[in-house]
Amino acid sequence: MKKVVRYIIALMGLLLYNLGHAEDGSQLWLRYTRVPANEAALRTVACRVNDPVAYMAVEELQHYWRRGDVTLVIDKSWSGQQTGGYAIQSRRNKTVISAGSSAGLLYGAYHLLRLQQLQTDIQGLNIVEKPSYALRMLNHWDNLDGTVERGYAGHSLWKWSELPQKISPRYREYARANASVGINAVVLNNVNAAPLILRSDYLGKVKALADIFRPYGIKVFLSINFSSPKLLGQLRDSDPFNPEVVKWWEKKAAEIYGLIPDFGGFLVKANSEGQPGPQDYGRTHAEGANMLASALKPFRGLVMWRAFVYNPSAEDRAKQAYQEFVPLDGKFSDNVIVQIKNGPIDFQPREPFNPLFGAMPKTNQMVEFQITQEYLGFSNHLVYLAPLFKETLDAQTYTRPLHATVAGITQHGPYPQLSAIAGVANIGADRNWCGHHFAQANWYAFGRLAWNAALSSSSIAKEWLSATFSPDPDLVDPLSDLMIASREAAVNYMMPLGLHHLFAFEHHYGPEPWGDMPGGRPDWMPWYYHNADSIAVGFDRTSSGSNAVAQYHSPLREQFANIATCPESYLLWFHRVPWTYRMKNGRSLWDNLCYSYQQGVDQVRHFQQVWDSVEGKIDAQRFKGVQSKLKVQARDAVWWRDACLLYFQTFAKMPLPADLERPVHELDDLKKIKLNLKHHN
Amino acid sequence: MKKVVRYIIALMGLLLYNLGHAEDGSQLWLRYTRVPANEAALRTVACRVNDPVAYMAVEELQHYWRRGDVTLVIDKSWSGQQTGGYAIQSRRNKTVISAGSSAGLLYGAYHLLRLQQLQTDIQGLNIVEKPSYALRMLNHWDNLDGTVERGYAGHSLWKWSELPQKISPRYREYARANASVGINAVVLNNVNAAPLILRSDYLGKVKALADIFRPYGIKVFLSINFSSPKLLGQLRDSDPFNPEVVKWWEKKAAEIYGLIPDFGGFLVKANSEGQPGPQDYGRTHAEGANMLASALKPFRGLVMWRAFVYNPSAEDRAKQAYQEFVPLDGKFSDNVIVQIKNGPIDFQPREPFNPLFGAMPKTNQMVEFQITQEYLGFSNHLVYLAPLFKETLDAQTYTRPLHATVAGITQHGPYPQLSAIAGVANIGADRNWCGHHFAQANWYAFGRLAWNAALSSSSIAKEWLSATFSPDPDLVDPLSDLMIASREAAVNYMMPLGLHHLFAFEHHYGPEPWGDMPGGRPDWMPWYYHNADSIAVGFDRTSSGSNAVAQYHSPLREQFANIATCPESYLLWFHRVPWTYRMKNGRSLWDNLCYSYQQGVDQVRHFQQVWDSVEGKIDAQRFKGVQSKLKVQARDAVWWRDACLLYFQTFAKMPLPADLERPVHELDDLKKIKLNLKHHN
Repeated sequence: MKKVVRYIIALMGLLLYNLGHAEDGSQLWLRYTRVPANEAALRTVACRVNDPVAYMAVEELQHYWRRGDVTLVIDKSWSGQQTGGYAIQSRRNKTVISAGSSAGLLYGAYHLLRLQQLQTDIQGLNIVEKPSYALRMLNHWDNLDGTVERGYAGHSLWKWSELPQKISPRYREYARANASVGINAVVLNNVNAAPLILRSDYLGKVKALADIFRPYGIKVFLSINFSSPKLLGQLRDSDPFNPEVVKWWEKKAAEIYGLIPDFGGFLVKANSEGQPGPQDYGRTHAEGANMLASALKPFRGLVMWRAFVYNPSAEDRAKQAYQEFVPLDGKFSDNVIVQIKNGPIDFQPREPFNPLFGAMPKTNQMVEFQITQEYLGFSNHLVYLAPLFKETLDAQTYTRPLHATVAGITQHGPYPQLSAIAGVANIGADRNWCGHHFAQANWYAFGRLAWNAALSSSSIAKEWLSATFSPDPDLVDPLSDLMIASREAAVNYMMPLGLHHLFAFEHHYGPEPWGDMPGGRPDWMPWYYHNADSIAVGFDRTSSGSNAVAQYHSPLREQFANIATCPESYLLWFHRVPWTYRMKNGRSLWDNLCYSYQQGVDQVRHFQQVWDSVEGKIDAQRFKGVQSKLKVQARDAVWWRDACLLYFQTFAKMPLPADLERPVHELDDLKKIKLNLKHHN
Repeated sequence: MKKVVRYIIALMGLLLYNLGHAEDGSQLWLRYTRVPANEAALRTVACRVNDPVAYMAVEELQHYWRRGDVTLVIDKSWSGQQTGGYAIQSRRNKTVISAGSSAGLLYGAYHLLRLQQLQTDIQGLNIVEKPSYALRMLNHWDNLDGTVERGYAGHSLWKWSELPQKISPRYREYARANASVGINAVVLNNVNAAPLILRSDYLGKVKALADIFRPYGIKVFLSINFSSPKLLGQLRDSDPFNPEVVKWWEKKAAEIYGLIPDFGGFLVKANSEGQPGPQDYGRTHAEGANMLASALKPFRGLVMWRAFVYNPSAEDRAKQAYQEFVPLDGKFSDNVIVQIKNGPIDFQPREPFNPLFGAMPKTNQMVEFQITQEYLGFSNHLVYLAPLFKETLDAQTYTRPLHATVAGITQHGPYPQLSAIAGVANIGADRNWCGHHFAQANWYAFGRLAWNAALSSSSIAKEWLSATFSPDPDLVDPLSDLMIASREAAVNYMMPLGLHHLFAFEHHYGPEPWGDMPGGRPDWMPWYYHNADSIAVGFDRTSSGSNAVAQYHSPLREQFANIATCPESYLLWFHRVPWTYRMKNGRSLWDNLCYSYQQGVDQVRHFQQVWDSVEGKIDAQRFKGVQSKLKVQARDAVWWRDACLLYFQTFAKMPLPADLERPVHELDDLKKIKLNLKHHN
C-alpha cells in the first residue's frame, strides 16, 4: 500500500513537473527526478569497485533510483568484458547489476533508470546485454574555430579557446548523455582536419576533455590531417615512406599517449575532396593507413580510414570507392578499420547500401552514418533516422554465408574486437543540443542501434518518446508512428523513386534540380544524377550505363540490373527510365513521381495534425518549438514538390494528374532562391 | 452544303486562331474575326440613319457579321427610346434590328455579334431588349496624376498630360468595350476629386474624351470637389447658400455644356472621409446637392450624391449613412440621385444590403458596386463578382409592396427616367485592361447586369467565357462553375460567417485582424469590427448592441436580430457570438470558423485543378497568366487562413479541429508582414 502511494506521488510529481515547467530540451532523454534525501536513505546502492566509472554508476543510482536496493558487481568471467556488456537480475526489492567492466556497470545503471522512466515493472528482471559493436562512436565535424561543418545546432560544443582552463558544465552533460545510450568513443574534430589539433597546446585541451569523458567510459579520438608532419612538424613532406615522417608520427603518438593513456586513435580523410593523403606521394591508402597504425600500435591505438573517395573523372562517382579500396583488401594492418559511408554517394535521403560492404573480407569495415541532417532538412525537418540506419544495417549483401548483412559484416570482421560503428554527430551549443527536439532522437537511436543493431526503429522511438516527453500511450503511440513514417515522407517530398542529389549547391538545404555551375565538377551537379531529358530520367547504372550494379554480389547485381526486379525505391538510382514507363501500380513513372511528391506533402501535413493532438500532454515550450518546426517542414515540402515537379515537367511535358494538388510557386521564382547558408554555421 | 463548309472553315479558323496565337487579353470579350472583303461583299448591312452611333453599329456589322443581310431601323414608337432598348427579328438569311435610338441599334448590333460568337442559331430570332437601368455607369477613381485609387491594373487609362492633343487608340477601344455590354455613362475621375478637373484646360481634355465616347453612346460625367469655388474660383468660400458660389457653379455648368452638350453631370463625395461638403457651412447634403442640381438643370445634367458618410463617433459606422440621409428624404431635387454602396460598411467580401435602400421612398436611389477588387485580392485573386452584385440586387427589403428588392427600388424610383447603377471601374493601362484576365468578367458582368438585372450569374459567366476564351463546353462548363464558386471561396478564406474588415491597414490586401494604430480612427481598425475576446466574437448590432438591425424593415429586422433566424452568413455581422455557440450543423462557432477558412483554401486548390484541366483549350499566354495568378491566390488563401485562425485562437483558446489542415505560418511572422502597397498604384 505504502509503495503504491509512493508510486502515485512520484507519478503525480512527474506529471506536474512535465506540465508545469517549460522545458528547453536541455535534459534530453535524461529527465530523471531526484530522489529526496529521506527517501534515498531508505534504500542502498552498494558497490565495491573503486574506479571513477563505477563511481558514476553508483552516483546516478543514488540520485535517481527509487525502487529498492541495488548492488553492482564486477564479474571477470564476462566474455568481451571491455565492450561494456552487463546483466541485471532482480528479486523482490533487490536488484543486482553485474558486468565485466565498470563501463558495463554504468550501462546497467542507465538501463535500470530507463526502465524506471518507462514505468516498466522491474520485478523478476533477468537481463543480459552484450553490445553489437565494441566501438560505438560519434564523429564530430567540429572545427577549431568553433564552427561545425554540416552542423545545425549552433556552434561547436568545444570551446577550444577556453580549454583547458575553463571547463563548460556541458562537457560532462554531453558525456553522460552518450554513456546513457552506450556511446563509448568520440572523434572530437572535423575529418577535414586542421593540423593544429596535434600541436601540444591543443593536445592539452584534448586531454582536458578526455579526463572529463573517462568516468563515463568514453575514449577520445582525433581526426588528423595527413600532411601534419609537413605542416605542423616542418618536415620536407608527409610521405609515409619517409623515415622522418614515420618518426614524427611515432613521437606524436607517444606525446598523445603520455597525456591520454587511453587515447583511442586517429580518424583519417585522405585523398578525398582535396584533403592530402598518401597518394600525393604515390602510396596507397593502405600504405598510408598502416604507417599511422604502426605508430599507434604500441599504445593499442586504432586508425579509422575513410573510404569516401571520388574524383571528377568520367567514372560514375558511385563506383569509385569500391574501385579504389577492393584491390587493397588484405593489405591493411589489424588495427586499421576502413570506415565506409552507408551508401555509395553521400548520405542521401535514400541510397542502396555501399557495395564495399562485404567486398573486402580480409579488412575490418565499419559503417559511417550521418546523424546530422545535411541532406534531410537540417534541424528544421523532423526526420527520424533509425529506419534509414536499419535499412543499411539490415541490407543483405549476399557476400558471406554467415554474416551477410551490413550489420553482420561490420560486427564480424577478421578482427572482431575491432567491430565499430560511427555516426556524424548532430550536436552543438544549442540549449537543446540538436536544434530540433526530435533530432535528439537520432542521437539516441544511433547510440541504441550501435549497442544493439537488432532493436526495431519503433521500439527505440517509443523508448525515446517515453523518456523525452511522457510514457503516456496517447502520446507515445501516435508519435512513434509519426517518427517511423517521417523518413519515408522526406524521401517522398525530396527525392522519391531513387532520385538523388537534387540539392542546392553547397548548403544542401532546398531543392535545386536545375543546379549548374559553369566549370564546376559534374559530380557536384544535380543533372549528373538525374539525367532528365524529354524521354527519360534517372542514372543508368546497368551494363548499358556505368555498370555500377556489377559491384553488388549476385543475386543483387541481377536484381538491381533488371528494371522489372529492381525495387522501385531504387528505380532511378539504377535505371534511366522513360517518363511513360508503367510502374507496378499501373501508373506512368511521371504520374507516380507526382503522387510521390504530393504524398510527402500530405504526410507532413498529417504530422502537424498528429503533433497538435498531443498538445497539453507535454510542456508548452517544446510543444511550440516542434509545432513551429513542422510548419517550416510543411512549407519546405511544398517547396520541394513544386520545384521538382515543375522542373521535371519541363522535360516530361506531361500534365500533372488531374486530381493532384497544384503547385503554388513559379519555377522561375524558385530558381532565384539563393539561401545564405554556409557549410559552417 | 456550302454554308456548312463555310461554317466549318470559320470554326477551324477560330480554333487555329485560339491555339496558335498567344493572346494578351487586350481584345477582352471582343475577339471577333474580321470578315474577308470578298465574303463581306456577299451580304449587305443597310441603315438609313445618319449619325455617328448608327454608323458605328453598321461598321461593326460590316467588319464582323458573317450570317446574311442586316437592316437597322429607327422606330420612334419605342417607349423609353433614350435608354437603348432594341428588337431583333430574323427570317431566313435576313435580320432586322429596330430601336428607338441609334444607341439601341448599336446595342442590337453587339447582341447579334455576341450570338455569332457564342455559335447560337440565329434562325427565327425574335428578341426584345429593354435595359433595367437608364444610366449604366462606370465610376473611375482615376487621379489627374495618372494614379488610380484602388486600381490594380496599372496606371490610369487617361493620359491627362497628353490630352487633348494626343489621343490614345485605347480610348476608342475602351468605349467600344463599354458599348458592347451596354454601359452608357462614365465618371472619368476619382470621387476624391481634384478641383483642377474643372479648370478650362482640363475641360478641354474631358471634351476630347467625350467626343471619342459619343459615337459609342457614352456620356461623360465628372467627380467634383465641393470646394471648387473656393479652391479653383478663388471665392471666399464654397457655401451653397453663398450667391457667388451659386453663380460660380452656374457659370461652370454653362462652360462645360458649351464644350460638351451632352455632358452627364456631377458625382459628389461630400463630407465623407475628409472631403469638403455643405456641412462645412452648416448646410445639409440635400442643400448642397440641390445647389449643384440647380446649376445643371437647364442642361438636363444630373447630380449623383454619394451616401458613403461616416464619422469616428461612438455610433456604429454601419448605421450612419441611414441616420444622415433618411431625414432628408423628399428634400432632394428631381435631378439628384443618391448613390449608395451596396452594403452599409465598404465593399466587403460579404455585407447585408444597405438599409438605406427603400428607406427614402421620395428620393432617387442608385446602387454603387465596386468592380475593382479593393477588398477581394486586388487583381491577384480570381473572384467573379456577379454573385455578389446579384446578392444585393435580389435582396428583399420589404419596404414597398411592388418593387421591394434593391433592384426594384433602384429601377423604379420616384423619377424612373433617372434609374441608374454604378460600378467602380477595375480598368487601367495594363495590356489586358484589368490586371487579371478574369477581372474582365467583372467589368462584363457589371455591364450585363446593369442592362438586365434579371440575368443569372451563371449565364453571364458562360457568355463571357465563350466570348473570351472559347465556346467549347468542356471549357465553359467547368470554368463557369469555378467562377460561380469563386466569390464564396473568397468569403471563406477571408472572412466567413459575417466577419468583416479584417484587412491590413490602408491597402486592404492581406489579413490584419490584429491591426491597430495608436491614435487611429477606431472605425478603421479590425478590432472595431470583430470584437473578439475570450468569450465571443462579432459585432452586436441587435438591440443589446448598436441596434443597427432596427434600420431594416420588418420582418428582416426581427430575422436579423434573432440569432436563431439570422442567416449564418451574416451571423457575426449582427451578433456577438460565443466561441462555443452551436451552429446549425452542430459544430461550435469556433470549429465552423476553422472549417470555413479551410474550405476556402480547398476551393482555391480545386480552382487550380479546374484551370489546369483547360490547358490546351486556350492560348498559352492567357493560360499561364491565370495559372500564375491562381498560385498567388492559393498562397494567399493559406495566408488568410493562418492569420485569422491563429489570431482568433489567441482569444478562443480552443484547438483546431483534429482533422483540419494545420497552419504553416507563425502568427508573429505574419504580424510582421508590411506590404508596400499604396492606395495609388
